[in-house]
Amino acid sequence: MVPPPADLSRLCLHTMTTRPWALEEAVSRFAAAGVKGITVWRSAFADRSPAAAGELIRSHGLSVVSLCRGGFFPADSTGGRARAVDENRRCVDEAAALGAPHVVLVCGSAPGLSLAESRDQIAEGIARVLPHAQASGVRLAIEPLHPMYAADRSAVVTMGQARAICGLLRSPWLGIAVDVYHTWWDERLEDEIRNCGREGTLFAFHISDWLTPTTDLLEDRGVMGEGCIPIRRIRGWVEEAGFKGFHEVEIFSRRLWASDQARYLADIKSAYLAHA
Amino acid sequence: MVPPPADLSRLCLHTMTTRPWALEEAVSRFAAAGVKGITVWRSAFADRSPAAAGELIRSHGLSVVSLCRGGFFPADSTGGRARAVDENRRCVDEAAALGAPHVVLVCGSAPGLSLAESRDQIAEGIARVLPHAQASGVRLAIEPLHPMYAADRSAVVTMGQARAICGLLRSPWLGIAVDVYHTWWDERLEDEIRNCGREGTLFAFHISDWLTPTTDLLEDRGVMGEGCIPIRRIRGWVEEAGFKGFHEVEIFSRRLWASDQARYLADIKSAYLAHA
Repeated sequence: MVPPPADLSRLCLHTMTTRPWALEEAVSRFAAAGVKGITVWRSAFADRSPAAAGELIRSHGLSVVSLCRGGFFPADSTGGRARAVDENRRCVDEAAALGAPHVVLVCGSAPGLSLAESRDQIAEGIARVLPHAQASGVRLAIEPLHPMYAADRSAVVTMGQARAICGLLRSPWLGIAVDVYHTWWDERLEDEIRNCGREGTLFAFHISDWLTPTTDLLEDRGVMGEGCIPIRRIRGWVEEAGFKGFHEVEIFSRRLWASDQARYLADIKSAYLAHA
Repeated sequence: MVPPPADLSRLCLHTMTTRPWALEEAVSRFAAAGVKGITVWRSAFADRSPAAAGELIRSHGLSVVSLCRGGFFPADSTGGRARAVDENRRCVDEAAALGAPHVVLVCGSAPGLSLAESRDQIAEGIARVLPHAQASGVRLAIEPLHPMYAADRSAVVTMGQARAICGLLRSPWLGIAVDVYHTWWDERLEDEIRNCGREGTLFAFHISDWLTPTTDLLEDRGVMGEGCIPIRRIRGWVEEAGFKGFHEVEIFSRRLWASDQARYLADIKSAYLAHA
């Protein structure tokens, strides 16, 4: 087992984790707390330009870790798929302006298509966005989602399926975001992480915890240590595979959003040091 | 694609599907509707003995398809695991008295154990119950559950993991219950069903549908056709693999339980003929 994180130097928070805070407050609070990275959700730009958001973040000494999120490629019409590709190119432009090294892709799943058909359309959509991503210096990170999101959010529900798309398109600009919440149940996780390391596709690492009971499919995640995910073991696999990036805390929780956010941020820091 | 079911001769309902009805009402309503099979949840016995429940069911011309449910083998103490084995032996006794050819196993998952450790304990628990099952003429059917239940209900979350346990224990008294709700997302489903057919382990087939959005992890399933599961395609795989048993409608739904149950039963019949 790897030792606990020695300090906060690799701790990153998603803006969605402390959703009640607007970007400016999140940035100043994170910086004051010693958090070193931030992943920006597009909704956090509000009326600020991505470039201005990036300046704000860097002026507080924080790194922009990634932009969330692109994706949602499958659609039951050619027009729908073309609009998705356009939207992803805009997302790449925003990431470039923000100074984010990559865009996280929640790949989508179209009702009326089989999951295999949706995955084919995902691969096709990514292929169409990749040249623009490369030209913009922005990488794309496929995030396999938990199978409970297969119907509407992502037909890519395993690391193996994400790797298959990376293997098909073979570009240094395409990789994978590993999220423990989505992947912890998968008996192949350790092997797939090792494979990704060898293939150079480990782009991001997201952490949170699985609560029992889970009362909402979307917004009932836990802070590290509140649930059953072997987060430190998985971090060990990711680091053995050569990952040197940030540990991104991505928690959606109505319960925690309703709590005092300053206290919650302090809890995240101690939970990170104790359980990540 | 296989043709729709020609009639109701293979339609079975779980007592939980129409939970508001006590066993006696369920049996008479199902029989009057032309349903031919019933799967009994242990909670449906109420103050009736399993043998009396079996007589009641057969007196209405219905087949007892299975007993739900045994399982929950993993525990963090030797005593806890022994109690689970005892409870499963009692469950086998009830199935024998009821006249159910098999017991469905929801295998369990222990907090504090890794999923792999839980699966080891599941295999060990089943091994300890199997001699009694065989002596009682009752088969055991492992039901792989959806990965969203991995934390608390079943560390067996794929057909492949269920097959691995069957392969380890190799007994004609041990097989698998395939539930489309739990398995539809799995890209290996078709292959695994074919493998099970070859290995003689396809014991049961459960149907319902996946709703979008799903508002509750446990009690928000849909009637066939309300959601996105390719039920008929999966039924085709199961039947090509040689399965000749009942199609068991197993729906947990607070919404549907709150509706008029006679109307709901009529809807299930037409949905079965249209979508199964």
